[in-house]
Amino acid sequence: MTTTAKNTATSDPQGHRRPARGAAPRAHRARHSPVVRHEVFQTSLMSALLDGIYDGDMTLAELLGHGNFGLGTFEALDGEMIILDSVPWQLRVDGSVTRASLDQLTPFATVTNFVPSISEEIKGPLTRAELSELVDHLGVSANYLYGLRITGDFEWITTRTVRRQKRPFPPMSQTTSDEPVVRQTQTSGVMAGFRTPLFEQGINVAGCHVHYVNNEHTHGGHVVDFVMNSGLIEVCLGTDLRVRLPLSEAFQDADLAPDDLDEQVRAAEHH
Amino acid sequence: MTTTAKNTATSDPQGHRRPARGAAPRAHRARHSPVVRHEVFQTSLMSALLDGIYDGDMTLAELLGHGNFGLGTFEALDGEMIILDSVPWQLRVDGSVTRASLDQLTPFATVTNFVPSISEEIKGPLTRAELSELVDHLGVSANYLYGLRITGDFEWITTRTVRRQKRPFPPMSQTTSDEPVVRQTQTSGVMAGFRTPLFEQGINVAGCHVHYVNNEHTHGGHVVDFVMNSGLIEVCLGTDLRVRLPLSEAFQDADLAPDDLDEQVRAAEHH
Repeated sequence: MTTTAKNTATSDPQGHRRPARGAAPRAHRARHSPVVRHEVFQTSLMSALLDGIYDGDMTLAELLGHGNFGLGTFEALDGEMIILDSVPWQLRVDGSVTRASLDQLTPFATVTNFVPSISEEIKGPLTRAELSELVDHLGVSANYLYGLRITGDFEWITTRTVRRQKRPFPPMSQTTSDEPVVRQTQTSGVMAGFRTPLFEQGINVAGCHVHYVNNEHTHGGHVVDFVMNSGLIEVCLGTDLRVRLPLSEAFQDADLAPDDLDEQVRAAEHH
Repeated sequence: MTTTAKNTATSDPQGHRRPARGAAPRAHRARHSPVVRHEVFQTSLMSALLDGIYDGDMTLAELLGHGNFGLGTFEALDGEMIILDSVPWQLRVDGSVTRASLDQLTPFATVTNFVPSISEEIKGPLTRAELSELVDHLGVSANYLYGLRITGDFEWITTRTVRRQKRPFPPMSQTTSDEPVVRQTQTSGVMAGFRTPLFEQGINVAGCHVHYVNNEHTHGGHVVDFVMNSGLIEVCLGTDLRVRLPLSEAFQDADLAPDDLDEQVRAAEHH
């Protein structure tokens, strides 16, 4: 794999720093622009979704007022959401892709106004694991949030899509086990998502979480695995987090701190 | 102990709800006003403070722009902060209490514009444990944040105060072990702080965290224990959380997810 840095090199005066867990090597850091404030907005919590809180609490119209880029899901867990250039796409388990309407509701979504502070061109095959490691080292610090926009040509990509649920809603662990994993080959499209720090586990998915839609808007979903042939990785640094909790009684009664939270997040997001 | 509810009783149409962990009994809930949105603002993270990130990242002038009420600490861990009616008080380990100036810096603070949605008068002696349990049951749901303002006459109250640190800053666990616990008897004053949900552990202190200053502004600190003879509990519900991470290199390099995070929070805040 060949990576070509497109960053503006800026000097980064360094004191005596301890290396942070998961922090980038110094060589990588020095290439970054100065850190500027940028907000990531989120409605509800990953832990609420895991507990079966699928009632939409916010319209897409309101959500898009907080950012033009992001991911989430829809009322009743009716498909994966990916927002690109202020357009929300709904990727359903039946394989359909539609432009969502602004009056649809979301029970969980994370958005930001995407401003790339780092970009890197990729040439040569790159696996998901390799890209994930690259992203870990692109950021200034593992303690911030990062929006990730990855535009690329994929040798293959596998995705999953949540299935619309009926009331009474079951916890997410009972909904994802029978989701089909769909494999597409020779596809071009965009992955959008976030890399969030460890202290966000439960609030969001600690680590990388990305959704995909192809350029023709005919397939996509929650990204499971891939090999990318070439592409552009763009990273948007987030220093501020705003979380808006639902007002619904279902949310008020949710169990947001189950003993097996980490396990549930992994099962729901990483299988 | 006698408690007198001062809430406006409103009907609360209820479906079939599962009881949440730590949630209030239904009888308590029905007394509440409808939930309205309210933001709690925080600069930096409890886990960063535990890791020794004591460099102030925000002036009090900026902090007070986000709320007129709250708590925190000062640059170099130089005392406990309590903010009441937009006045920040600095409670130092030497026993002094001064009105902090707006150009002082804070490395960690949580504030809100205090709007009480629930208030309850207390008559008869009430221990910290009893009051804590009462607060747990006053709220609409354990899944929201709560500002707590407790104005009272205390039979006695014990407080601790962090000590100004020198560079290089040690982790908080090494700073709090020799803090004196000061006991005051027959004192009247105000406790200010927050009750935060379990998913905030590390971000803040999950559970109750309050600071105290007496009415004469001559003593106070981080509250350890007390018996309150009479007083007024006021609770401000927070549905939105905004966290602003520091831009400093020290923060970027901090270890925010140590294996013993829970233990460190308990040691720093609850001894």
